[in-house]
Amino acid sequence: MLIVKIGGGQNVNWDYIGEDLANLSTKERIILIHGASGKRDQIARQLGHPSRVVTSPSGISSVYTDQSAIDIFLMVYAGLVNKTITAKLQQYRLKTIGLSGIDGALWQAKAKKDIYINVDGKIKLLRDNLTGRVEKINLDLISLLLDNGYLPVICPPAISFDQEIVNTDNDWATAVMAGQLHVKKIVVLFEAPGLLKDINDPNSLIKKVDKDKINDYQKYAQGRMKKKILGAQKAIDLGIEKIYWGDARVKFPITNALAGNGTIIQ
Amino acid sequence: MLIVKIGGGQNVNWDYIGEDLANLSTKERIILIHGASGKRDQIARQLGHPSRVVTSPSGISSVYTDQSAIDIFLMVYAGLVNKTITAKLQQYRLKTIGLSGIDGALWQAKAKKDIYINVDGKIKLLRDNLTGRVEKINLDLISLLLDNGYLPVICPPAISFDQEIVNTDNDWATAVMAGQLHVKKIVVLFEAPGLLKDINDPNSLIKKVDKDKINDYQKYAQGRMKKKILGAQKAIDLGIEKIYWGDARVKFPITNALAGNGTIIQ
Repeated sequence: MLIVKIGGGQNVNWDYIGEDLANLSTKERIILIHGASGKRDQIARQLGHPSRVVTSPSGISSVYTDQSAIDIFLMVYAGLVNKTITAKLQQYRLKTIGLSGIDGALWQAKAKKDIYINVDGKIKLLRDNLTGRVEKINLDLISLLLDNGYLPVICPPAISFDQEIVNTDNDWATAVMAGQLHVKKIVVLFEAPGLLKDINDPNSLIKKVDKDKINDYQKYAQGRMKKKILGAQKAIDLGIEKIYWGDARVKFPITNALAGNGTIIQ
Repeated sequence: MLIVKIGGGQNVNWDYIGEDLANLSTKERIILIHGASGKRDQIARQLGHPSRVVTSPSGISSVYTDQSAIDIFLMVYAGLVNKTITAKLQQYRLKTIGLSGIDGALWQAKAKKDIYINVDGKIKLLRDNLTGRVEKINLDLISLLLDNGYLPVICPPAISFDQEIVNTDNDWATAVMAGQLHVKKIVVLFEAPGLLKDINDPNSLIKKVDKDKINDYQKYAQGRMKKKILGAQKAIDLGIEKIYWGDARVKFPITNALAGNGTIIQ
């Protein structure tokens, strides 16, 4: 089984992904997880509730999630983007079924409403942040769908153990899902060839990362890449053997990443 | 098996529906279908693409659906409203799974892009309307979910036979789904006690409608009720024996409709 996680950038090429999956899915069971941050930020601005980024004391940024942000999250992730992808991949004869973490309580999270944030160097407590960390996967539902030939297309948000909708880190959720499904490899695609030493130089690609030293690479990570490294660390901790990072904008992007043309963490 | 279709008005009481379903779902398999027109019109205005209503030569109104309207439809129906309902009903220990007609190609529609409309008394051809009529249901998927204890929460849009996302009439789709599942009864809830002779007089409730004479009642229908009558006619044609129309704003709304406190078509 293979889990493929695709970032939410607007230059991801879903036709290339569809072509690749049409072939790969004949050989292996596949679960797709996607983001939608690019479109989310755009719609949030249009609706007059621009995404508000907060930074943790350790320098990890995330979106502050009040009820308006949850509503926009549902609209863009679970609605517009999830269904557009689900329909697009059906054009490649894939039996896709789009699900959020809420559906069938697929992604169950522990709510974590109070977080510390760094505001101009001062640590402050932020309350009522509607976020949580995924801890439990509805494995019965995933097995039911895979056993019957469906390709699940999954996105946040998650549902808390108290049945509240919570925003959740997608890379972390991917790791937990892979761990509970005993998946051995994860492919993570985004708008770069892999982890770069210099974000402005595509030729500075880091081809191999020793899984025991992954945290040493935080120094090369900027923006969202910091969370991908945390997610990879979590996946390694949960027994995933190989993580392939690759480019979501090239032809046969999954095959390309699996062939070692991006960054391999092992 | 019971199909419950709930309108998209903003005064529908989902806690009352949850309480009622928690009890009813222990006795019978239930499929929920919902609308979201109220919220859709609100978000469409906020995004600067207000819903544009067109009227057919026979006087039936519908929303003109270009790509922007489809995007908003996905956001509000399949995203915000479907997932909010799915999570809300999980608070009542229901194993809900939210699906659009796209997911698993659940609702397959014949695209009908060119329609005739009445503009100030003149009949005009409107092209590129991204709509279709549901003709085929993925019964395998519905059976799979029901057999495993899930309560499907379903909304439009549908997927065309060419894998395009199309807006579709919800009452018609409900009828086709009920017909193909050989369901004998449908409950339809909305923001009125049932079919009223006078829309301004809640005491003018029509308690019984002879299914062979349902079209005679178009004269009492206004706005969206005209489509509900067409949907009921379609359901009767497909072998559904009883349709219960009732109020989505009262306690135990489904039980209340089944007890004959709204309009029964039989």
